[in-house]
Amino acid sequence: MKRIVVLAGGFGGARFLRGLRAVAPESKITVVANTGDDITLFGLRICPDLDTLMYTLGGVINEKTGWGRDDETFNSKAELAGFGVGPSWFGLGDRDLATHLIRTEMLNAGYSLTDVTSALVKRWELGLELLPMCDERVETHVRISDEDGDRFIHFQEWWIRLGAKVAAEQFVALNIEQSRPAKGVLEAIAGADLIILAPSNPVVSTGIILQVPGILTALKNADAPIVGVSPIINGAPVRGMADKCLTAIGVETNAHAVGAHYGARSAGGLLDGWLVDTTDLPMEINGIEVRALNLLMIDPVTTQAIAQEALNLGRALSNQRGGS
Amino acid sequence: MKRIVVLAGGFGGARFLRGLRAVAPESKITVVANTGDDITLFGLRICPDLDTLMYTLGGVINEKTGWGRDDETFNSKAELAGFGVGPSWFGLGDRDLATHLIRTEMLNAGYSLTDVTSALVKRWELGLELLPMCDERVETHVRISDEDGDRFIHFQEWWIRLGAKVAAEQFVALNIEQSRPAKGVLEAIAGADLIILAPSNPVVSTGIILQVPGILTALKNADAPIVGVSPIINGAPVRGMADKCLTAIGVETNAHAVGAHYGARSAGGLLDGWLVDTTDLPMEINGIEVRALNLLMIDPVTTQAIAQEALNLGRALSNQRGGS
Repeated sequence: MKRIVVLAGGFGGARFLRGLRAVAPESKITVVANTGDDITLFGLRICPDLDTLMYTLGGVINEKTGWGRDDETFNSKAELAGFGVGPSWFGLGDRDLATHLIRTEMLNAGYSLTDVTSALVKRWELGLELLPMCDERVETHVRISDEDGDRFIHFQEWWIRLGAKVAAEQFVALNIEQSRPAKGVLEAIAGADLIILAPSNPVVSTGIILQVPGILTALKNADAPIVGVSPIINGAPVRGMADKCLTAIGVETNAHAVGAHYGARSAGGLLDGWLVDTTDLPMEINGIEVRALNLLMIDPVTTQAIAQEALNLGRALSNQRGGS
Repeated sequence: MKRIVVLAGGFGGARFLRGLRAVAPESKITVVANTGDDITLFGLRICPDLDTLMYTLGGVINEKTGWGRDDETFNSKAELAGFGVGPSWFGLGDRDLATHLIRTEMLNAGYSLTDVTSALVKRWELGLELLPMCDERVETHVRISDEDGDRFIHFQEWWIRLGAKVAAEQFVALNIEQSRPAKGVLEAIAGADLIILAPSNPVVSTGIILQVPGILTALKNADAPIVGVSPIINGAPVRGMADKCLTAIGVETNAHAVGAHYGARSAGGLLDGWLVDTTDLPMEINGIEVRALNLLMIDPVTTQAIAQEALNLGRALSNQRGGS
C-alpha cells in the first residue's frame, strides 16, 4: 500500500487520518478534502474541513471541540459583535483568523486553493498531502422551510446557527457542475494502491466530493480497491448531524443503508469493502466485503486499529483482485 | 464657538480633542483626520490615525501605548508570524482586527471611507464628527538611502520598522493630487467659527491634510480664525519623531520655526493664532498672535486647559476680526 488516497470531510476524516498516518508511515497518503462547507465571512475565505484537517494533523486542533485552534481566544469575534456586525454564530478564533487572512490574501492575488493549502500546511509536517477537491468556489446550500418561507441557506448557517434542527429538504452544491478536480486529485486516484472513504458525512462531505465532475468516474475506473469506513454506528452518527442529512436524501441512518447507498463497485457503485462497527452486525451487502470492529475513535490506539483494519481489508481486496 | 473644525493626526490630535470635547460640550466639533498613514496589510485596510482618534475618543484606547485597543491580545499576529507571513513590525491586535475587517469589507463593497468611518464610530458616542481628509487612497511614502539604495518606502515602514532612524529625504503623499476633500470637509471649514490645527506632526499629519486639493484654499478663505497648537515643546517633539520629518522639509525643530512654517494668514499663510509652551517664550511671529501656557498634555486637567486656551485665543481673534 504505497499510495493511499482518502476522501475526507472535517472531524471524522481528520481523526481517522491521524490513525492512518501512524500505522502507514511508509505510505504516501493523499487526502481529497470536501470544500463544500467553505464560506466567506467578514470578507475572509474560510474552509472549515481543510482547516480541521490541517489543524488536527498539524497537532494544533482544539481537541475538546474538534474544530479551531488550541489555546484560542475570541477577541476579534467579540469586537465584531460589539460593532453589531454579524454573523455571530460562526466560531472565528483569533489564531484561526491568521489562516483565513493568509488564504484570502493569496486567493485575491490569484493563487489557487490548492496552492494556498499547500502554502499553509508547510508550517507543519503533516506527513501527507492535503488537496481540496477542487479549486473553484463551491458552496453547499440547504433548502429549508420555516416561518421565513421556503428557501436556501448556506450549509454553515443550517449546521451551526440552526443546529440542523430545521429539516433539510435538499442539498445543492452551488457551482459544482463548473468545477474540476484540483490538480493532483485524478492522478492520485489513478495511481493509488488503496482508496478509502473516511468516516465522514456521506451526504455533505463525501457526497459533495463525489459530485465534482470526473471524481466519481475516476474512482470507478481506479485499479485500487475502495474501502469505506462507516460514519454511522449503531444507527446514529457519532458526532454531527449526518442523520438529518441522510433523511434529506432518503437514506436511512444505519451503516447498512449507507453502505448500500454507496453501492457495490461490481454493481456500478463505489465500494469494494465496508468497515462497520460490531454493533451493526450481522450485515451483508451484495458485492461488498464487510468487516466489523469497534469504530468509535475514542483514543489513538482505537483509531489506529481502525485505520489498520482498513489497510488489512484493502490488502485482502487487492489480493483478490490479483493486485500487489 | 458653535462650530469648531480641528485638523488632526493620531496621538496628539486625539488627546487634544479629548480635552476640547470636555471644555466645549455645546460646540459641534468636526475633525478632519490625516489618512496618509493608511496602509493595506494582510489584505486589510488600516487607518492608524482614524483608529487612534476613534479609540481615544471612544474611551477604548490603550492608554499606555497610545495606539490600539485596551485589553488587547496579539494571537492573530503571532500566528501570521508562525506561518512566516509578514510584516511582523505592525502592531495588529486581535480586537483591533475587527475594525480593519469591517472597514475592508465595507470598502470592498463600495462604501466610501467617510461612510465606513461613520459606521464604525456609531458604536461609541464620540461627541464629535470624525471625517477622513479624503475618500481616495492616499499613502505617504518616504524617500530614504541606505544599504539597499535610494528608494521610497511606506511611511509606516519608516516610522515603525525603522523607527525613523534612517534619514528621510522627502515625503510624497501618493495620489494626493487626485484626491478631493471628503464629503463635509469644505462645508465644515466654510461654516466654522473656529479652526484649530491640533498638536499633530506638521509634516506627515497636518502637512498631508493641507495637500488635499481644495483644503488649503478653503482654510485661507474661511471666516473663522485659525489657531495652531504647537506639537514642538522646548525644541523637541513630545512624542513621535516630528524632528526627523521637519528636518526633511528644511524646518528647524522648534515652535517658532513651525509657526513660521505655517505662516501668518495675513501674509498668505495659515495661522491667526499660535499656542506654544511657556518654555518656548519669548516668541514673536509677524501677523500671528502667540500665546503660551504649559502644553504638555499629561492629564485631563492640563489637556482641558490647553483646549480652553485655544478657545480663548480663537474668541479673542474672532472679536478682533469683528466676528461673534
